[in-house]
Amino acid sequence: MSASTNPNDTRVLILLDDPAPQPGAAALERDLADRLRVADIAEPQVSVLDLGVTRGDGIFETLDAVDGYAQALEPHLARLVNSANLLDLPHPDLDLYREAIRQAIELSSEPRISVKLVLTRGIEGGTVSTGWVFAEPVPNFDDARRDGISVVTLDRGYRHDAPQTSPWLLQGAKTLSYAVNKSVYREAARRGADDVIFVSSDGFVLEGPTSNVVLQFGTHLVTPSTDQGILRGTAQGAFFEYAEANGLTTEYRTVTPDELEKADSVWLSSSVRQIVPVREIDGVARTFDAELNAAALDYMLARRS
Amino acid sequence: MSASTNPNDTRVLILLDDPAPQPGAAALERDLADRLRVADIAEPQVSVLDLGVTRGDGIFETLDAVDGYAQALEPHLARLVNSANLLDLPHPDLDLYREAIRQAIELSSEPRISVKLVLTRGIEGGTVSTGWVFAEPVPNFDDARRDGISVVTLDRGYRHDAPQTSPWLLQGAKTLSYAVNKSVYREAARRGADDVIFVSSDGFVLEGPTSNVVLQFGTHLVTPSTDQGILRGTAQGAFFEYAEANGLTTEYRTVTPDELEKADSVWLSSSVRQIVPVREIDGVARTFDAELNAAALDYMLARRS
Repeated sequence: MSASTNPNDTRVLILLDDPAPQPGAAALERDLADRLRVADIAEPQVSVLDLGVTRGDGIFETLDAVDGYAQALEPHLARLVNSANLLDLPHPDLDLYREAIRQAIELSSEPRISVKLVLTRGIEGGTVSTGWVFAEPVPNFDDARRDGISVVTLDRGYRHDAPQTSPWLLQGAKTLSYAVNKSVYREAARRGADDVIFVSSDGFVLEGPTSNVVLQFGTHLVTPSTDQGILRGTAQGAFFEYAEANGLTTEYRTVTPDELEKADSVWLSSSVRQIVPVREIDGVARTFDAELNAAALDYMLARRS
Repeated sequence: MSASTNPNDTRVLILLDDPAPQPGAAALERDLADRLRVADIAEPQVSVLDLGVTRGDGIFETLDAVDGYAQALEPHLARLVNSANLLDLPHPDLDLYREAIRQAIELSSEPRISVKLVLTRGIEGGTVSTGWVFAEPVPNFDDARRDGISVVTLDRGYRHDAPQTSPWLLQGAKTLSYAVNKSVYREAARRGADDVIFVSSDGFVLEGPTSNVVLQFGTHLVTPSTDQGILRGTAQGAFFEYAEANGLTTEYRTVTPDELEKADSVWLSSSVRQIVPVREIDGVARTFDAELNAAALDYMLARRS
């Protein structure tokens, strides 16, 4: 069973049949395994009429799997459900996603892979959503993890309380409408930086386009609170878990840009890259706690759940 | 040559080979017709790795074609180029799009069709973009055009000057990242309304999710100026053209929400629906100039360029 016509291609694509079935749907009568199909990644698999394509009207999650174990599987599935709720999508069939993830990991020959879960609203006017699970080898992030990355702060345009005042803006959902998240990486590159930290239009530090922000003040770690339309970071959660088990304290609260300057260290955390320290913000060099960085990274990379 | 395995399916899908070629690309050596392929709309045509799918990282336009004539073809192509520039996409091959549109109209057996043009950044890490043209029959909008629609005003979250202060937010580009534009229709439905007028976070009337807003004050028509991240409406342009030829004056400027209440009429204009008058805003009934509405609509529907 191969995912590609190219035997050297280690990527795996699994298509899900009716991944968010309505109550009483025919799919629910069938075995999970019968609702999964390994597909050729070299072939087109999505209709031009799919709302995931025409409107970016869908959601995703990306998790890391190491030596056969999916990291933070249940927190990722919980976030998928949260995104589905924010978009009024039907409830994803989590058992089907779990089985697809298990198969994708099993079929992959690589020791460390990223696994992406996708759910779209399906073809416009239809009643069946579209879903797939895609696994591929993880790039090598050793240099960035050890030496750090440069970031710029960019305005996200929304107030920090937009999720409460204007929930239709879908802040806090991980959607397929990520053109802005691609655009800000191009703006960062124009400014000679590797990554981005978003700031709200009313002056609060939020998150990166694909990461959370963690600040260190002595033995205290801080991350922006998720009620500001920030995704609850699974890697950030693991970082805090490590910190708490090693005598540090942790806190979720609002953070202002001047605190990025004052902090002893700043990290970006995300599922596949885990944590990377920040060595420059808006052109200003800064230091970080290399010892804590290395120890936390070891812990995070070795997680088997 | 059929666009579907179903002979009753009047939709037409044409795939474009290298729709935004780099200088010197092999595609440029080939005839336009050889770079177009009529495809089966019932089959999947897009890769799960296409950035148009995974990140909503692409652009589109939708135009109306009547009796074989594409309405406002060149303004739509100009807007496609403008969106491509805002997203740093390569320059779309407009001759290729023109030929695809011509073929789609020719292949369609319907007297009035909508024609959608799509350009995505293509598969991540690749050098070739993805493009297609899709034609389908236009629904009947007679009731809405005659009787009007109900709208709600919703916060778009951004300030009206975001395009100048934060161009990376891609305001004014017509992108495939339209999940919010779908979400606000669900919010409108929850409030018992048909459509939406966006207001900036600092209190200016902007546009609808898929339309422009036109206000009438006596013999004067006003629409919000496009420097606020508003798409330059091709239908709104035709409406103003009709107005100017018939003794009315027109203006582009900032508009405040209280002016929606004071205006003699409010319309939403868009390529396929043309103009629809607004008969209710945020639950408050309002009147409109039925005579001007009918006359302008006749003019707009009959346009052959």
